Amino acid sequence: MPITEVPRGLAGVVVTDTALGDVRGREGFYHYRQYSAVELAQTRSFEDVWHLMFRGSLPDAQQRARFAAETAALRRLPQDVRDALPGIARAGAASGPLAGLRTALSLLGASSGLRPLYDTDAAGREAAALAACAAVPTLLTALHRLGNGLEPVEPRDDLPHAANYLYMLTGAEPGARQARAVERYLVSTIDHGFNASTFTARVIASTGADLAACLCGAIGALSGPLHGGAPSRALDTLDAIGTPGRIDSWIRERVLAGERIMGFGHPVYRTEDPRSRMLREIALEFGGDLVDFAVEVEGRVEAILAELKPGRELHTNVEFYAGVVMELCGLPREMFTPTFCAARVVGWSANILEQADDSKIIRPAARYVGPPPPQPVPAVLD
Amino acid sequence: MPITEVPRGLAGVVVTDTALGDVRGREGFYHYRQYSAVELAQTRSFEDVWHLMFRGSLPDAQQRARFAAETAALRRLPQDVRDALPGIARAGAASGPLAGLRTALSLLGASSGLRPLYDTDAAGREAAALAACAAVPTLLTALHRLGNGLEPVEPRDDLPHAANYLYMLTGAEPGARQARAVERYLVSTIDHGFNASTFTARVIASTGADLAACLCGAIGALSGPLHGGAPSRALDTLDAIGTPGRIDSWIRERVLAGERIMGFGHPVYRTEDPRSRMLREIALEFGGDLVDFAVEVEGRVEAILAELKPGRELHTNVEFYAGVVMELCGLPREMFTPTFCAARVVGWSANILEQADDSKIIRPAARYVGPPPPQPVPAVLD
Repeated sequence: MPITEVPRGLAGVVVTDTALGDVRGREGFYHYRQYSAVELAQTRSFEDVWHLMFRGSLPDAQQRARFAAETAALRRLPQDVRDALPGIARAGAASGPLAGLRTALSLLGASSGLRPLYDTDAAGREAAALAACAAVPTLLTALHRLGNGLEPVEPRDDLPHAANYLYMLTGAEPGARQARAVERYLVSTIDHGFNASTFTARVIASTGADLAACLCGAIGALSGPLHGGAPSRALDTLDAIGTPGRIDSWIRERVLAGERIMGFGHPVYRTEDPRSRMLREIALEFGGDLVDFAVEVEGRVEAILAELKPGRELHTNVEFYAGVVMELCGLPREMFTPTFCAARVVGWSANILEQADDSKIIRPAARYVGPPPPQPVPAVLD
Repeated sequence: MPITEVPRGLAGVVVTDTALGDVRGREGFYHYRQYSAVELAQTRSFEDVWHLMFRGSLPDAQQRARFAAETAALRRLPQDVRDALPGIARAGAASGPLAGLRTALSLLGASSGLRPLYDTDAAGREAAALAACAAVPTLLTALHRLGNGLEPVEPRDDLPHAANYLYMLTGAEPGARQARAVERYLVSTIDHGFNASTFTARVIASTGADLAACLCGAIGALSGPLHGGAPSRALDTLDAIGTPGRIDSWIRERVLAGERIMGFGHPVYRTEDPRSRMLREIALEFGGDLVDFAVEVEGRVEAILAELKPGRELHTNVEFYAGVVMELCGLPREMFTPTFCAARVVGWSANILEQADDSKIIRPAARYVGPPPPQPVPAVLD
């Protein structure tokens, strides 16, 4: 069989074609279909962009109303899943909220009688994906509240997706500024090339497995600290530094010890992360001490990294200002990565739907580097 | 960024180095570390090979006794997971047993307080992997029995892994021939190169996520009909054909309609699948009408495929005789893929442990083929 040498971690290796979007790391630009993702985040609702990703175009007025009604009706959970959530919330405390979501979404998929993608037509696949994306915010907020001794809040059909998410989390209707800031964040986070979780979803989809199987794998990948696990850690870094006077010594010490500085650096961008730029703008609209401090830390860290790791082009990634914006919007830190997930599930699903049209399983190879086989198997010694 | 062109589905593309084993598709040979996997299956216990995969060598007598005691002690489930199994079994009926396992193992991981691989040392990672591999047969058999209105059977510490699996499934101690046949099947199925589920596990592990996240993704991939979903379908094919006289017309009709014949063809082997050869031998040791019919179908299908798809080298894969052997050992058909999974979880785990030593995230790329961006985002029309 032909063995193709490729860069470690498959960096830059084209696995498939996609019409969903792309990331141009050198330009600091990313897009959903033919539109700038940041421009969509600034001008469109979450539902509009969800429609764009699933159906290929932004909705007209009639499509918008129908899509909003259709997805809002899918927010409620079946009774057997509701019954299981307290047990899942109790078990999941130590492993974090994405572990709880992974279990709950797996159960919801089975409870919905999901069939393999391989055995489902395009309409059935889209219906399953719509249901999963609509249910994720309900699952996440219910598990969070149960874990904190609170009753889940029922979804409201009359609120947009982002506002309903904040409502289910807190039990109070959010302010317009908070809701819109979170909505812009959610839109900006729907998709981002072939990151590890999206790729995981597509590998699983390539086997013809059911939608929940694909999404549970993606949630697992997102839960990894090297992928989606960082936004709250970036904020923890700000807390650990504490005051402007300590920035330099704190950062230098860690960089010289070979540690990663959470919130900085990205495997694809060699410029500023365009999501970071938009989120910084949102943060500056809010203003306040936290924002001033974050801007100062950003500047110092970039300068120190440029000095100690010249040529590496390490800038803030999406996690840094995402943490700041979510803190400003009143989201608890343990919900930062889950909130990312509530958006990304739409991107994963769009990728799964696209992958399902390709019948080729994704199955790479590895290079064996152990002692040469076959050695005779030694007899059992008793 | 450099874009590397590679074959569709990453076929033959080397993603990483491994010391765990390899598949030589042209030679019809595969190995675990330096030993022929088939020879291991013929001569060694499941626990011996599990030890080989996890710790790098076959155990001596003292290591064998310690490893057996250590893993047997991990078969029992914590109470919160036991309490959740009836609900998981009820929800999972339509989506199949791997969907139930996916949920249950996800819950078990969270209940065990699993931390990200990224934050766990090598000893902690191995302990988590041992616990998961030991628990999977207990979870699978408990879910199966609950789904059929039966009480789960508690694991027995005094039985070897394979015999205990059959015992928990049926409630009766298995015959020596059945237990050994299933054990040989299980050993032969532990690992098999960078198949889609193993690759999924490694992609998730590369993000530093917890062990359950990696295994749930792998289970999802295995549940895909194009990957692990076939052993019972291959047997269903035998049933559908029914009698020797109908073989030719039944097969020709399907091949000419462009359908896949389940149990035939493999993405890597261009010869007979060595697992198929071993499983055929085991089946012939049992003998009987089913075995005679399977051998006849195998011969006719290979001849027809050689005629209708010349040069494709389509032979029986592991699923074909695996189904026959499991049927002969009294395993219910819905447990065929789960039984495969009970073995493969050891291979996935060994791969996850190996991947955890590599700090590079697996993140490929895709080629955008939609309309060129950025197009201006149209204003919202109301």
